[in-house]
Amino acid sequence: MSFVSEPAAPSIRTAVPGPATHRIKEDLDVVIDARTVQMVIDYDKSIGNYITDVDGNTYLDVYAQIASIPIGYNNPALLKAAKSPEIVSALVNRPAVGNFPSHQWLALLREGLMRAAPPGCTQLFPAQSGSEANDLAFKAAFMGYRRQQRGDNPWTEYEQATAMKNQAPGSPDLAILSFRNSFHGRSFGSLSTTRSKPIHKMDIPAFKWPQATFPQLKYPLEAHIQENAQEEVRCLQEVETIISSWHCPVAGIIVEPIQSEGGDNHASPAFFQKLQAITKAHGITLIVDEVQTGFGATGKFWAHEHWELPSPVDIVTFSKKAQTAGYFFSDKNLRPDKAYRQFNTWMGDAARIIICNAIIDEILSKKLVEKTAQVGIVLYDRLATLAAKYPNRIQSLRGKNMGTYIAFDTPDSSTLLKKMRELGINIGSCGVQTVRLRPMLIFEESHIAPLLAAFETAFSHLA
Amino acid sequence: MSFVSEPAAPSIRTAVPGPATHRIKEDLDVVIDARTVQMVIDYDKSIGNYITDVDGNTYLDVYAQIASIPIGYNNPALLKAAKSPEIVSALVNRPAVGNFPSHQWLALLREGLMRAAPPGCTQLFPAQSGSEANDLAFKAAFMGYRRQQRGDNPWTEYEQATAMKNQAPGSPDLAILSFRNSFHGRSFGSLSTTRSKPIHKMDIPAFKWPQATFPQLKYPLEAHIQENAQEEVRCLQEVETIISSWHCPVAGIIVEPIQSEGGDNHASPAFFQKLQAITKAHGITLIVDEVQTGFGATGKFWAHEHWELPSPVDIVTFSKKAQTAGYFFSDKNLRPDKAYRQFNTWMGDAARIIICNAIIDEILSKKLVEKTAQVGIVLYDRLATLAAKYPNRIQSLRGKNMGTYIAFDTPDSSTLLKKMRELGINIGSCGVQTVRLRPMLIFEESHIAPLLAAFETAFSHLA
Repeated sequence: MSFVSEPAAPSIRTAVPGPATHRIKEDLDVVIDARTVQMVIDYDKSIGNYITDVDGNTYLDVYAQIASIPIGYNNPALLKAAKSPEIVSALVNRPAVGNFPSHQWLALLREGLMRAAPPGCTQLFPAQSGSEANDLAFKAAFMGYRRQQRGDNPWTEYEQATAMKNQAPGSPDLAILSFRNSFHGRSFGSLSTTRSKPIHKMDIPAFKWPQATFPQLKYPLEAHIQENAQEEVRCLQEVETIISSWHCPVAGIIVEPIQSEGGDNHASPAFFQKLQAITKAHGITLIVDEVQTGFGATGKFWAHEHWELPSPVDIVTFSKKAQTAGYFFSDKNLRPDKAYRQFNTWMGDAARIIICNAIIDEILSKKLVEKTAQVGIVLYDRLATLAAKYPNRIQSLRGKNMGTYIAFDTPDSSTLLKKMRELGINIGSCGVQTVRLRPMLIFEESHIAPLLAAFETAFSHLA
Repeated sequence: MSFVSEPAAPSIRTAVPGPATHRIKEDLDVVIDARTVQMVIDYDKSIGNYITDVDGNTYLDVYAQIASIPIGYNNPALLKAAKSPEIVSALVNRPAVGNFPSHQWLALLREGLMRAAPPGCTQLFPAQSGSEANDLAFKAAFMGYRRQQRGDNPWTEYEQATAMKNQAPGSPDLAILSFRNSFHGRSFGSLSTTRSKPIHKMDIPAFKWPQATFPQLKYPLEAHIQENAQEEVRCLQEVETIISSWHCPVAGIIVEPIQSEGGDNHASPAFFQKLQAITKAHGITLIVDEVQTGFGATGKFWAHEHWELPSPVDIVTFSKKAQTAGYFFSDKNLRPDKAYRQFNTWMGDAARIIICNAIIDEILSKKLVEKTAQVGIVLYDRLATLAAKYPNRIQSLRGKNMGTYIAFDTPDSSTLLKKMRELGINIGSCGVQTVRLRPMLIFEESHIAPLLAAFETAFSHLA
């Protein structure tokens, strides 16, 4: 799998960010808000796990475009897919796919994307972003909930008239429950379930939907078994209390397998098993948001496979490493009872699905999920050793046996990240004090050494 | 501009839809909801204004993927762009563009997409769909509104804490006003402003936002001048009444230049001039939704250019014919006061922007907007003549001097559309009884003859 031309190590030539980044950022800021630009990248010079900026600095990239590059920059298999006649056609002849699908559409889905379907999920709705996927999943949950209530009764005139006025009963007061510190996106539906930071939510009207506490586990896990189990029970009780007491029915629950933007917060398989049981008992749709956790990084194709659930998840949303987006679902009742209820002009992008299918090919044929599981074990062990040496710099190390989806708390994450970038490692943070590793699925044991060396240098520097 | 290999006329070989469409539709329905599929298309055989289905039937396409194909199937200029090294790189190395833009990003926007910026609009936020563009525009309006109120005061702890709970004042109760019969998309924000049909809105929770009546003009316009002017005054008074009496502040107004899904409803330039004046007087953001009307079909690049406004529109949203999406804006205060408030992982798709830039090249270099204005005059005149012959089939003909953005009412539009397709014309409807023409910008005078011949045959058949 290795990229033969991948650099052996990072190399930094200028201040970080360098003068060329500064110059382009200034120009960009005239037409778009460029305050968030960290580095301007020459993607044509970037390769595999390494990213090269316009100042000629090359970084080992374990952030990977906010966890969204799956199999490396300029991966040869993706280059081939991006030059295929199929993608050219998809780019220039973009259909209103719900009405006029192409002759390739069936194969792109049935023989393509459906290979990624989570266990028990037989159906799919394509989208273009994680936020859109979650919004669509919420709509499916609401329509499904009302269908249970309505049975075979037709829509009344009154329902239809009130829906047009944004009033109940046509536009009913129904809720999606999410968890404190979760991130599910920034559109109006998904943002009403996002609970990680004020910067996302301030000044934006939101639906009056509830949040439950997500377990705050203590580390190391083996030293806090009973305490953590009690914490999870407490959170599940909160879910039950909200369902029975909220001012309107809860039609769906959305949860991340690992709360990522919110600080890489984990919970046990038992927690999620019980959460599913609660949704089943109440006739509520369980939506597992695998936008960041999906596509292999946790050492399973889908992170929720770690839970060994007794029955399939209702809805699984995806984006990021898929390089396309949408939701898979298992329950036929989540397909709306009428045509055109879940519909839009483009419903995804066949060009992006072609890229996704090439990614799935690579993941399956090169066993990248299994390899990531193995590399993750080594990486975790090395970090645990480092944590023993720098206990004040690496705290609450988490992600054991979760592939390379590893994180730890550190006192001043922004200073560490800056230092790491000066040392040639592009790395991200989350929550308030967490460093999250999000390497690609082609991160190998050979990449651990430069990463760990940089941590060691940074920690000594900061000490 | 003509496609040399474009068919001279439609040709229909099977029942419509044909057996191959039926077969593929059935297979598709196993993995996705395929009830909405009308025809399965062989896009590789489609060319220019003509679309060919998998049964070998070739149609003149004046629906163009719900008004979203701008310059013809397999346009050579787009094929070239779709094979360029730039697009290959954009497809395989998709950045989190707000943090790590490519070295090409500046040119793609400043020398590319910004050429399409409406008069006075100096800035841009890219997106992936019309719904997303409108949601983002609403967020910009809400943040802008609160900024006016808050001045330079920092966010309070209480605001931040309440925002995290979806409660005021952090998550304030603010509204976007839209118009009856409008369509602005299907995500939770945009759907709360969509008011065209219950099928879009039923069972979906909505924000308690208000709607005003959109003028219902009588045709022919020259016979109802005073009546129509009064109707527009009445609607504007309704807007004023809502602004002063709604249960919460109205922070923005969204309006389509021509209500498209809602039935191709027009209003006069005076109406929109006065609407803008109202928003200015109240410090409200005016959002013009040009998702369907933008990019030339009305004989201006942007439909709102017909209004000759005294000052730029605050926000203009786009998608469809742009083959990418987003919003342009004119007021610097609509850029949020802090970084990361308007942000997401992908913020558009550079690959789709490269296609859009090739579309803009073609539109500008081949003067397609001016040509569409001219062809529209001829097309409208021919339809007016036909209306005189079939006054019960073509009613309230509208879109005079609006390019090819022409529509009329007809007693049974679905039967007419079915008949037209059997005659080799792919055409769309809107509202409850309206036939809408949405030909591409490469629709020429030579295409009028087969279209009009089919109408004539269909009308005699239906008579």
